[in-house]
Amino acid sequence: MRDKKKVKKGVILLSGGADSVTTFYWAKNKGYDLTAIIFDYNQRHKKEIKCAKNIAELSKIKYFLVKGDLSWTKSSLTDKSIKVPSNGKIIKGEIPITYVSGRNIVFLSYAFSLAESIGAKYVFIGAHIQDYSGYPDCRPEFLDKFQEMADLGLKNKGIKLVAPLISKSKKDIVKMGIDLGVPFEATWSCYEGKRNPCRICDSCRFRIQAFNELGFKDPLLK
Amino acid sequence: MRDKKKVKKGVILLSGGADSVTTFYWAKNKGYDLTAIIFDYNQRHKKEIKCAKNIAELSKIKYFLVKGDLSWTKSSLTDKSIKVPSNGKIIKGEIPITYVSGRNIVFLSYAFSLAESIGAKYVFIGAHIQDYSGYPDCRPEFLDKFQEMADLGLKNKGIKLVAPLISKSKKDIVKMGIDLGVPFEATWSCYEGKRNPCRICDSCRFRIQAFNELGFKDPLLK
Repeated sequence: MRDKKKVKKGVILLSGGADSVTTFYWAKNKGYDLTAIIFDYNQRHKKEIKCAKNIAELSKIKYFLVKGDLSWTKSSLTDKSIKVPSNGKIIKGEIPITYVSGRNIVFLSYAFSLAESIGAKYVFIGAHIQDYSGYPDCRPEFLDKFQEMADLGLKNKGIKLVAPLISKSKKDIVKMGIDLGVPFEATWSCYEGKRNPCRICDSCRFRIQAFNELGFKDPLLK
Repeated sequence: MRDKKKVKKGVILLSGGADSVTTFYWAKNKGYDLTAIIFDYNQRHKKEIKCAKNIAELSKIKYFLVKGDLSWTKSSLTDKSIKVPSNGKIIKGEIPITYVSGRNIVFLSYAFSLAESIGAKYVFIGAHIQDYSGYPDCRPEFLDKFQEMADLGLKNKGIKLVAPLISKSKKDIVKMGIDLGVPFEATWSCYEGKRNPCRICDSCRFRIQAFNELGFKDPLLK
């Protein structure tokens, strides 16, 4: 009989994008018993939510869909009247128009609440270095401080926040995902929610570039 | 013409209870231009949400109702099958069954996101000493750490978290509310959501005791 006590429970923040799905496969590969948390924050399109659900279902894990409208923020990811960036450049020190105020703060708050409630000792997030040049809530110092805050604000200290991709580039992440068997054809990175990736938004550009540098073809590109 | 720049904008966490409404009146009295944020976390009853809306409408301020289900937590405030406590005692170091995992973390996360989005520089919360003997997310050290975390995780540093009741007892708070003209008849503190307060749950007990000690009658008690 399998010893249940030995299985480490964790909560995974799942967006349906390449980063969170690679994080999921990394944690799954390490043997964690995972529950996913998927957010509907009234984002630009629902396609990523569909992908996230699909990924959870593919692996037969339980998931919670949390609806928490963040559309009061003026972001191109919540307001369709604002164009998504497509210049393929990350400007150091500049926060892009895709910034959604407090997004990871809200997501992690729910994830820690869920983790405590189901007795999980780990929360996994796909935040990484390429994002934190722009997003303040992807920086390691933010994640460290969130950990300290959660330790004080929850009943149970020591639910550990784990960001395995934090120091990785997009290329490293796609490489890791390929090695772990991530079904990239079931993920979604494009800022637009059309039938096929637009190939010109920044999110598409960085993903395609990573696949190209590795000598692979993104399976989403038909 | 009124100089708009001089009006300090703030976000108030409004639950409809005596504490948050007193905090609201305190901030209003100081001249803040307030926007309320009201939470539907799938709590035991909706009466407090109705009261919170009513309080916001009475003062003609804008409010946002945020739906964010926290019923995965095993709490008597989200699960009707669990009895609410009514022994009238706060046991030092013991977290009551009314604890909702991560509640203030989630609430404050939204409040800071909203504050940043509307250009408010202050977030007001009614957390206080009597609660923090039991709830970890009402302690001053938690609030301080949340402030540090928000300063790192948001685009704009320095949205200030203000908890004017933090060191006050329930008696002090009710006294403050009476002085500020809080319409206590429009607030709701009882853990049960019936027509009239139950008078026996801990929340009723502490409120009634505070009014009694001040020589006033709680207008909710007919």
